[in-house]
Amino acid sequence: MANGDEESAVFAPVYDDHGLIPAIVMDANDGSVVMLAYMNAQALRLSLETGEAHYWSRSRQELWRKGATSGDTQKIVDIRMDCDQDTVLLSVIMAGRGVACHTGRHSCFYRRVGRSSQGYKLETI
Amino acid sequence: MANGDEESAVFAPVYDDHGLIPAIVMDANDGSVVMLAYMNAQALRLSLETGEAHYWSRSRQELWRKGATSGDTQKIVDIRMDCDQDTVLLSVIMAGRGVACHTGRHSCFYRRVGRSSQGYKLETI
Repeated sequence: MANGDEESAVFAPVYDDHGLIPAIVMDANDGSVVMLAYMNAQALRLSLETGEAHYWSRSRQELWRKGATSGDTQKIVDIRMDCDQDTVLLSVIMAGRGVACHTGRHSCFYRRVGRSSQGYKLETI
Repeated sequence: MANGDEESAVFAPVYDDHGLIPAIVMDANDGSVVMLAYMNAQALRLSLETGEAHYWSRSRQELWRKGATSGDTQKIVDIRMDCDQDTVLLSVIMAGRGVACHTGRHSCFYRRVGRSSQGYKLETI
């Protein structure tokens, strides 16, 4: 617990040592988990103010409005914080192609970990 | 992309600069997101080998078998990796009280962000 108050009504997001908070993204239509992204304080503020999902791209080191180039924007229906306010859960309606993943898939979680003769492998669903 | 191959069958989890990978945890019974936790390589290996969810506690800085003290263990039904293998999605059956949150709730995401006169506040659902 960062602030010791899991019952608080005070909105006080806790950022990591890179100034980021992870955001789990759910498809509001079916409740499925489609991606995990990261927000800095600005991305979270813009997400709240505009209702459009904004993230921080760790690879490009820049603010990123989801779908700005692809058209696959995310309209936020609901934002929740977890008990210690160091994770965000977004419920979104996906516009454009209705996909969250940069591979063009609905969800980034399209591979299951399975056993292989040498250990583990990924199986595309 | 850490390894440039979103179609690969090679299981190659990507850890952050603390040696951790975030794990989104879903209740296998209803598909709801119940928590986010972190795994180091040992926790992920033990989760795969035993079928019981293991995490790395960042606050206690120790390996943690979920439910070891509370009894609220998590039996893993399915493990998925995302496109760039830096996030894990677990689907679990929750034993014990059937709760994931240390507050005794089913899910850690029991507060919604809402508007207040001064900005934003949390509303318990």
